[in-house]
Amino acid sequence: MESSRLQAFSDGVLAVIITIMVLELKVPEGVHWHDLARSGVGFLTYLLSFVYVGIYWSNHHHLFHVVDRVDGTVLWANLHLLFWLSLFPFTTAWLDESSVSLVPTVVYGINLLCAAVAYYLLQLAIFRLPSVGQRLRVVLGRDLKGKLSPAFYLLGIGLAYVEPWLGQVPYVAVALMWLVPDRRVERYLEVTRSGG
Amino acid sequence: MESSRLQAFSDGVLAVIITIMVLELKVPEGVHWHDLARSGVGFLTYLLSFVYVGIYWSNHHHLFHVVDRVDGTVLWANLHLLFWLSLFPFTTAWLDESSVSLVPTVVYGINLLCAAVAYYLLQLAIFRLPSVGQRLRVVLGRDLKGKLSPAFYLLGIGLAYVEPWLGQVPYVAVALMWLVPDRRVERYLEVTRSGG
Amino acid sequence: MESSRLQAFSDGVLAVIITIMVLELKVPEGVHWHDLARSGVGFLTYLLSFVYVGIYWSNHHHLFHVVDRVDGTVLWANLHLLFWLSLFPFTTAWLDESSVSLVPTVVYGINLLCAAVAYYLLQLAIFRLPSVGQRLRVVLGRDLKGKLSPAFYLLGIGLAYVEPWLGQVPYVAVALMWLVPDRRVERYLEVTRSGG
Amino acid sequence: MESSRLQAFSDGVLAVIITIMVLELKVPEGVHWHDLARSGVGFLTYLLSFVYVGIYWSNHHHLFHVVDRVDGTVLWANLHLLFWLSLFPFTTAWLDESSVSLVPTVVYGINLLCAAVAYYLLQLAIFRLPSVGQRLRVVLGRDLKGKLSPAFYLLGIGLAYVEPWLGQVPYVAVALMWLVPDRRVERYLEVTRSGG
Repeated sequence: MESSRLQAFSDGVLAVIITIMVLELKVPEGVHWHDLARSGVGFLTYLLSFVYVGIYWSNHHHLFHVVDRVDGTVLWANLHLLFWLSLFPFTTAWLDESSVSLVPTVVYGINLLCAAVAYYLLQLAIFRLPSVGQRLRVVLGRDLKGKLSPAFYLLGIGLAYVEPWLGQVPYVAVALMWLVPDRRVERYLEVTRSGG
Repeated sequence: MESSRLQAFSDGVLAVIITIMVLELKVPEGVHWHDLARSGVGFLTYLLSFVYVGIYWSNHHHLFHVVDRVDGTVLWANLHLLFWLSLFPFTTAWLDESSVSLVPTVVYGINLLCAAVAYYLLQLAIFRLPSVGQRLRVVLGRDLKGKLSPAFYLLGIGLAYVEPWLGQVPYVAVALMWLVPDRRVERYLEVTRSGG
Repeated sequence: MESSRLQAFSDGVLAVIITIMVLELKVPEGVHWHDLARSGVGFLTYLLSFVYVGIYWSNHHHLFHVVDRVDGTVLWANLHLLFWLSLFPFTTAWLDESSVSLVPTVVYGINLLCAAVAYYLLQLAIFRLPSVGQRLRVVLGRDLKGKLSPAFYLLGIGLAYVEPWLGQVPYVAVALMWLVPDRRVERYLEVTRSGG
Repeated sequence: MESSRLQAFSDGVLAVIITIMVLELKVPEGVHWHDLARSGVGFLTYLLSFVYVGIYWSNHHHLFHVVDRVDGTVLWANLHLLFWLSLFPFTTAWLDESSVSLVPTVVYGINLLCAAVAYYLLQLAIFRLPSVGQRLRVVLGRDLKGKLSPAFYLLGIGLAYVEPWLGQVPYVAVALMWLVPDRRVERYLEVTRSGG
């Protein structure tokens, strides 16, 4: 099975997820600045989730860049990832509407955690493809950021019990960490091209 | 008419269907775990429909993999399938909001049944294409899962009258059965390539 | 400017239009068959608009099949068409919620009329492209169905003043007329290929 | 990283943005012409935002037409642009529901301004790509319309304090100015092809 249609479908799903989240942003009821201010939390949670979906799209893009053909396992590992990402509009809206309360902060962290695990499983499924060589496996395997992220999410979930707003700090930190795009694949391509 | 744009359009529609279903998942009204628990049924029905749309996307992908050009009949058979799939957000939301009552369970089963029939008609329309050889027809014709599924949906509709929740069992069973992707096309390609 | 990205964007917009209309289909408030029956009008109006968007997608597909490069005029004529098509979720929802009253029926007809005029203007813009030969212009120019449709929409608008439900008859008739796909382009390609 | 998938993703996001705005257009509560008239403001604000998203899509299309490969900076500059564009459904809905009051008019202008700045930053990121030659930089650099637009948005914000409706005039003027597509890239390609 060619990976191009899987990429196109994933792009479509991610494009819809990233965009419909704005529908959960309630239009202010009044017409003054203080009415808009009530949408401030919604704006920030929307921004955070937008960045996360953007990060997943960017990493997904990189991961499949080196894969031409996929099998059924990769296909379902990919849908499994999309499932958890598709819940972001729901968990983001709850986080916003609850004004960043304890349980919604924990649930948002669990959603981030499930997406991270799903991405990890997708990587494993891709490593098992016959066309993916040992070398790429080693390169992708050194996924420091991917290994650190779940620990940060757990930290955020723990901190939420101290103070809900505090739980957001590790979530934002991970997003900032990932904003620097993943150069492992690029480096691998450069090395192989230069005959390394 | 080339099949690539038909595939791209179908991917777009399926990507939107699979994603907007989450908009029907009501945000909990309170901020506690028991408020989230009320979304439990919604989560499970969303998961079931997500898996079904994923299955249809995967099978659609396989089916059109061997078709380069399509005619008007295939085009409309495809839109007919997309129509029934596009009703999933509606029937899933009703199933959820009714807490899996009798009639919504039956209607969900009818929706599954109509989609299955539409997929079967799409297969027939593809068989009639001059570019699709006799051999592929025989291979695709041995569609055991496709023939079993409607029987299971009817069983689910029947069981719903005994106990609504029981009706979900065959629906879930069919989804699990399909999670193993359809290898007929892959096998056919392998056989023809190896000159079999 | 290449027409492929314009086609991809149009496919995306049409895929979203055809799918989000289902969000306007209100979930029944009760759990019985008679509660679902109230969604009957919504189901039929949804079906009608689904078929119309499908027809426009199919004809759009045909029209751009013979066009490799487009200019700014075609680009905006295309966006103009997408604008009117994007109003279908709105006019369809009003038609449904009003239980097919007079003014919503007339407004739905006006929406159909505007889309038809926009499609006609898009054809004119494509005719003006230097790459589109005289012959294709003649072939596409014999657009009997395209010329009949506006007359039917006007008839529907007129009949709505007699009896709102009656106005739907010509709208449905035009949809049925178009379900037979447009073979002019196919015929043109066959003729030119065979050196005619 | 190839620019084709970035373009496909951007097309998807823009297609969803331009289409879901119609969901914010409230269905009239009555069935008469005067009920529809209340949607008049919504129709006009929807039209304005539709044209703006169309303009951004068209310019985006032109900008990436000459770029084959992008780096991480371009990727995030692009997502940054999509973020501000994705807020249009929100700011448009507020503008509509407030019947074009002062603050929503100012906020809409700020949204236009942020999108314009994001587009400018995206251009800068593209100029920094090694594959983009000096010449193209000069050609794209003469972006008179891009430099005028922010001034007009600021004018609109200022005029809104005189009279909210007046603030719309510069917003509409900029949209009209951009409706004439950007021919700089086309001219550049013509000149280089002709060996100029």
